[in-house]
Amino acid sequence: MNFAERAKELVSKMTLEERMAQLCNKAPAIERLGVPSYDWWNEALHGVARAGTATVFPQAIAMASSFNDDLLEQVGDVISDEARAKYNVYKKFGGTEIYQGLTECAPNINIFRDPRWGRGQETFGEDPYLTGRMGAAYVRGMQGNGKSKYRKVDTTLKHFAVHSGPEGKRHGFNAVVSEKDLRETYLYAFKYCIDHADAASVMGAYNAVNGEPATGGKHLVEDILYGEWGFQGYMVSDAGSVKDIHEGHKFTKNEVESAAFALNAGCHLNIGTSYRELPQAYAMGLVSEETITRACEKLFETRFRLGMFDEDCEYNNISYDCVECDAHRALNRQMARESIVLLKNDGILPLKTPKTIAVIGPNADRVSLLLGNYNGIPSRYATILRGIQEAADARVLYSAGVFPSTTSQMSDIYREAVVTAERADVVILCVGLNPSMEGEEGIDAPNSANCGDRADIELPKRQQELIRRVVAVGKPTVLVNVSGSCVNLCEADRLCNAVVQLFYAGAEGGRALADVLLGKVSPSGRLPVTFYRSTDDLPPFEDYSMENRTYKFFKGDPLYAFGHGLTYSNIIETPLDENTVEVFNEGPYDTAYSVLKYEYIPHKSLCGFKKIFIKAGDHITVSFDETEK
Amino acid sequence: MNFAERAKELVSKMTLEERMAQLCNKAPAIERLGVPSYDWWNEALHGVARAGTATVFPQAIAMASSFNDDLLEQVGDVISDEARAKYNVYKKFGGTEIYQGLTECAPNINIFRDPRWGRGQETFGEDPYLTGRMGAAYVRGMQGNGKSKYRKVDTTLKHFAVHSGPEGKRHGFNAVVSEKDLRETYLYAFKYCIDHADAASVMGAYNAVNGEPATGGKHLVEDILYGEWGFQGYMVSDAGSVKDIHEGHKFTKNEVESAAFALNAGCHLNIGTSYRELPQAYAMGLVSEETITRACEKLFETRFRLGMFDEDCEYNNISYDCVECDAHRALNRQMARESIVLLKNDGILPLKTPKTIAVIGPNADRVSLLLGNYNGIPSRYATILRGIQEAADARVLYSAGVFPSTTSQMSDIYREAVVTAERADVVILCVGLNPSMEGEEGIDAPNSANCGDRADIELPKRQQELIRRVVAVGKPTVLVNVSGSCVNLCEADRLCNAVVQLFYAGAEGGRALADVLLGKVSPSGRLPVTFYRSTDDLPPFEDYSMENRTYKFFKGDPLYAFGHGLTYSNIIETPLDENTVEVFNEGPYDTAYSVLKYEYIPHKSLCGFKKIFIKAGDHITVSFDETEK
Repeated sequence: MNFAERAKELVSKMTLEERMAQLCNKAPAIERLGVPSYDWWNEALHGVARAGTATVFPQAIAMASSFNDDLLEQVGDVISDEARAKYNVYKKFGGTEIYQGLTECAPNINIFRDPRWGRGQETFGEDPYLTGRMGAAYVRGMQGNGKSKYRKVDTTLKHFAVHSGPEGKRHGFNAVVSEKDLRETYLYAFKYCIDHADAASVMGAYNAVNGEPATGGKHLVEDILYGEWGFQGYMVSDAGSVKDIHEGHKFTKNEVESAAFALNAGCHLNIGTSYRELPQAYAMGLVSEETITRACEKLFETRFRLGMFDEDCEYNNISYDCVECDAHRALNRQMARESIVLLKNDGILPLKTPKTIAVIGPNADRVSLLLGNYNGIPSRYATILRGIQEAADARVLYSAGVFPSTTSQMSDIYREAVVTAERADVVILCVGLNPSMEGEEGIDAPNSANCGDRADIELPKRQQELIRRVVAVGKPTVLVNVSGSCVNLCEADRLCNAVVQLFYAGAEGGRALADVLLGKVSPSGRLPVTFYRSTDDLPPFEDYSMENRTYKFFKGDPLYAFGHGLTYSNIIETPLDENTVEVFNEGPYDTAYSVLKYEYIPHKSLCGFKKIFIKAGDHITVSFDETEK
Repeated sequence: MNFAERAKELVSKMTLEERMAQLCNKAPAIERLGVPSYDWWNEALHGVARAGTATVFPQAIAMASSFNDDLLEQVGDVISDEARAKYNVYKKFGGTEIYQGLTECAPNINIFRDPRWGRGQETFGEDPYLTGRMGAAYVRGMQGNGKSKYRKVDTTLKHFAVHSGPEGKRHGFNAVVSEKDLRETYLYAFKYCIDHADAASVMGAYNAVNGEPATGGKHLVEDILYGEWGFQGYMVSDAGSVKDIHEGHKFTKNEVESAAFALNAGCHLNIGTSYRELPQAYAMGLVSEETITRACEKLFETRFRLGMFDEDCEYNNISYDCVECDAHRALNRQMARESIVLLKNDGILPLKTPKTIAVIGPNADRVSLLLGNYNGIPSRYATILRGIQEAADARVLYSAGVFPSTTSQMSDIYREAVVTAERADVVILCVGLNPSMEGEEGIDAPNSANCGDRADIELPKRQQELIRRVVAVGKPTVLVNVSGSCVNLCEADRLCNAVVQLFYAGAEGGRALADVLLGKVSPSGRLPVTFYRSTDDLPPFEDYSMENRTYKFFKGDPLYAFGHGLTYSNIIETPLDENTVEVFNEGPYDTAYSVLKYEYIPHKSLCGFKKIFIKAGDHITVSFDETEK
């Protein structure tokens, strides 16, 4: 029997009540049938999350900036190994609890439409094609890429669809979009990941789209997902998004109706508790036994496909020893290196053996900056400061630069930074945001005034002043901006000798940055989002039209364009034909390099990319495969 | 002219208004007289605090547990070097601001009367003699010990007096004490530090004592401090404690009266702004010109004595290079080692080359645990986890053990800890408190329900369960409790093979602990406070009678007594006469060791201690000097 047939047989032995109870994320055990309890809610955005120690890779936006989908697929392979390793030990306790299972609520392939969105850091950026390619690579790596009859883990494409803030209104927000933007921008990556990587699952978003709740709306779910696309996987709600259907959207009258609406639309699993109302909905005739049974069969089909009931599933043998093992940490450092984006360099980088390095700024020694959100806990990690201390053959001075509340009575809080800069040959000035300034509504209370979003794209005022004061000292200065999103770096670009963008960079982030600053590797990241010059460049946050947004449609002049990213070498591209380019490394450094291909339809649009490693003086022919699109 | 005469001359050139303005901590510049602005409020409890990067030594309670006043004097010498180095660079900006000066609001020599007090961590423990000896050593080290005609920095004995919680009531609390307890317990260390170390300053406390506000009360300040003791230094208020005189204690009617009351009593300097009312008080005839002038002269005498107006002060040459230099870090590690208290050891310690070490618990990798409160920022540091990773020739596994809010839906939050323990040869289980659970009212919002105090001496319930679950795995387990105060460790003592007390241990704390766990050094710390078995052992928190408190008067049976602390060796003391003891190291380890001398008056009372280093097989004769008492 195949997995579907085994699921059908197993479900046939369940009572209707048992079937309904299986449709919430905390699925209870059914002991007489040998079914252990299982929690469907698990997180693995950039490493196994919220389940203790794990390899914490760079945040998704950082991995996108690597423009290296092959590497991301390897990362997915490693993350799913760690998820399996944890599941394998935890299942021995009987059932598994939340964050201990195999059905991962990742990747987040929403389009980073507006830099103010606090969760933009979770995405692969603003471009649908890049998002599709990176999302598909992650899904392949995580799910095992068809190498076994079993799936390694399930991935869930989220949030379906048209979901990108504002966080504070997400439970009742109605995103209004044109059919063109919907297809071209908001849905492209979902279809791509289903077509190219066989993603197991899709998660319905909190918001409504053009008046219909995303978790069950006819146009999105019935017409497009199951209809046009013929999606064969299962659909889950976001945590509590079924409740939003009546509470937030007023689309139904109560939770019973919401549960029926979502299930009937094809949302098989409710992360949350609304489906506890299914017995009532059934009693009222709002859902049929057949619909309930089909949903339950779908969920057990995937549990069978994950090998949960089979001894011969090779993934059962993945040992806990792999968790944060040296090989995984090495891959992590590689991804962190490739995710670093060099935005400006007047030649100061790589550093030329300074005797004294001043590392200055509030972002120099913050562990949270390595982690982003939806993160695991690393047991070994290096902040920027630590990374430089470990790697540099120099005296390393440090000033946090701006201090917390205890200095509120100090009128000049920049003195230590100034004094520290004065004493150094070169300054590494570490500014930016942090995960308490941008994030998700209700999670770890980020930026409570805006529920995790930002009101503007500026650096905090005290950091702006810090930059001015430190630069005024007159020492060569490298600015490192750490953030999960675009920050206005115009003044930094004007004042500093070099500007480096470090998205939340994972446990090895500080070491990877030191590798780049000190010239052990050449940077090769590219911006997966436009870096605008001003908040005034942006349309209203709640406007979901793509007009004047992202590199495709922005009419202004960005500070740093999508795709921008320097290496230490001098790379020349010479097109050979429409699908082939000859790449010459005419500079003095070996470097990784992403070749990008654009089309004009009529707006400029990424349609291909390939990352290569090219030695100094070498040349490589790169061909783009049309089937990748 | 001596300093007093120079001060008199300088002050004679000031207007009365100028003199009055000099009596608040933010003293303005008087340009025509060449007087720069100066802020008297500076912190250096265990390292230069709140002024950026500095060597962060173990918290005061930890340094007390070293029972090594010679070492503490060296620490004071180093801290004052760093304070001077910072002052020397900051004064070039014109004046110095808060936390950049030379008049340090340390040490805190209050008696740690009740373990629930959140600020007990700032003290040298519960014993007046130990507090006096350690306080005097710190003052000597900080002030330069008379080696120059200039003082290196000023120390301030705080909080004068009878100050030890509750934090939530401190601005209006009236501590009721007997004259015996006052003299024998609460004032002993103040007098000791004045007599033995010439402390520059005394700080008036927030509270009242037997009905009189401490900042200016007749009995404390006039009769005892200036009268009986003949104190020649200056007195400062606590931050805002003058305002408490009318607002909290209702002792005066308004701020004008409070300012007059405090100044007339001999409180020369107001940390705060109440003395801005002195012009009004003067106009009303509440203070005399002579009193104002004398206070101003006193303050300028100390500024002259600090060399602030002289080119030939050798302390002007201390270079910023010393801040957190290698020598200071080495001394820090030494102090951290000696502050570690081994409470129980069945022979498991030192560890015998385990292949795999599990480091488990919420206190294993928290930087805040190194810092305590009133701390600087270290640029190089090691948590417990990091210290063990760096030092151990073993695979080190890690689980934080109990997780924050994101795991609220997990019913069994201990699984990772259990799994991690199962995979190891030995478990280092790191539990305890942290500076957000015990601290000062209003500072960094610790434990808001109790304004920084604790309601009981128990470990958090989830940590208690964590201990049970981990021990149940059956692996050899070393419990490390990190806290600034007594915690009920009865269950840990019963269940674990060894118990180690780590008070907030400073930047090198993790490395020092690894030195001890792995046998690089033998532990030699002793408890400076009683470790009680239960909150029920304690009298009411607000009761300031010493009856049934501390090792001197406690009638019950403590789990670990004041002075308790094991080494890895076997030390035998043989008294030779009343003041001499022969110490034999009959064990296999070289070790530091504090010899304690008690008297019975009639209660047991520490009256001498001396720390020695004794090699395995060696013996040393230790003599106590009666003049130290």
